[in-house]
Amino acid sequence: MKLYEVATTPSCRRVNIFLKALGVEVERVTVDIRGGENLSETYRQMSINLKVPLLEIDANTHLCESLAICRYFDEITPNQRYLFGQTPLEKAQVEMWNRIVEWQGLIPAFQAFRNLSGVYRDRETCVSAWGEESKKRVTEFMPLLEQQLQSQHYLAGKHLTVADISAYVLITFCEARLQLVIIGNYPRISDWYQMLQQHDAFL
Amino acid sequence: MKLYEVATTPSCRRVNIFLKALGVEVERVTVDIRGGENLSETYRQMSINLKVPLLEIDANTHLCESLAICRYFDEITPNQRYLFGQTPLEKAQVEMWNRIVEWQGLIPAFQAFRNLSGVYRDRETCVSAWGEESKKRVTEFMPLLEQQLQSQHYLAGKHLTVADISAYVLITFCEARLQLVIIGNYPRISDWYQMLQQHDAFL
Repeated sequence: MKLYEVATTPSCRRVNIFLKALGVEVERVTVDIRGGENLSETYRQMSINLKVPLLEIDANTHLCESLAICRYFDEITPNQRYLFGQTPLEKAQVEMWNRIVEWQGLIPAFQAFRNLSGVYRDRETCVSAWGEESKKRVTEFMPLLEQQLQSQHYLAGKHLTVADISAYVLITFCEARLQLVIIGNYPRISDWYQMLQQHDAFL
Repeated sequence: MKLYEVATTPSCRRVNIFLKALGVEVERVTVDIRGGENLSETYRQMSINLKVPLLEIDANTHLCESLAICRYFDEITPNQRYLFGQTPLEKAQVEMWNRIVEWQGLIPAFQAFRNLSGVYRDRETCVSAWGEESKKRVTEFMPLLEQQLQSQHYLAGKHLTVADISAYVLITFCEARLQLVIIGNYPRISDWYQMLQQHDAFL
């Protein structure tokens, strides 16, 4: 198997943290996105969405979408990490929190960056008013995260799950790319973030 | 258990089609969203995101997010429908296609409607330029769906999965709410859509 990636992007970071937490190694291939390698005919043959990460399972079988890649590795790897949850209720709660983090956090964060940064101006229509609105929305999401972490150490239960990984990537992205100051302003998010940073998978 | 819903919304339709396909019945409670019932103190105690659908498992346990509710029912119901896939690869492919439909289809479709229709003007900032751009993006997604359905009867494999349900809700929403004409313009999507309409769950 081969994982096509740009290690620094949020989606690739989600997969890489997940694989470390699961204890899985996989061969990596760096894709030159800036040079348009993901738009080449070779890449089109492999990828449905032309994005990274992309997992090559064999010459004819490829997976895109970071969470689909995480789920595949979780399914084929005998483990007791339960990164997608263990019981039916826990599995549903992990799905719920992962989705809340995506729909109320990652989507507005990505849309803020894509519409405001200028980086995507050469490849898609950017609407700065929507970028500003998205930045406001992701900011407004933080109190909900803070509140959830008041009562528990991890976002969706008693142990580390993929929902924590998604939220960790969100906070890092907001601070690095949207110049939002979250660590320090939200005590529980800050404690949780620092706890995760001490976990091998997040190094 | 009780399912709080507004049956006509896309998210509630996803859950309802899923439950029918799974062969599960559950007590329903209609929420008066227009009257602000979802913003009441009672609803806040139950729901993290203040949206419908919301599943009450018991007095102290609630789930929001439609796909989390679907996954919970799938986990607690012994069945061989495999609506989230059967093998590790199939589970990952269902996750992938469901996410492609959401990120490239449902998200732009919802954002087009929310920013263009005027329905949400009293409760959130609407940016019509983003609504137009989102409508363009969901339109541009259809050829990918058409292409995928060239080679197979269902979106993510040999049988009905949650990815088909999401895509079905997307097409219905685009036609009813965004005035996009898809059925008739895309032969494979049209065949697939009509095949699904003959399935009991989609009636």
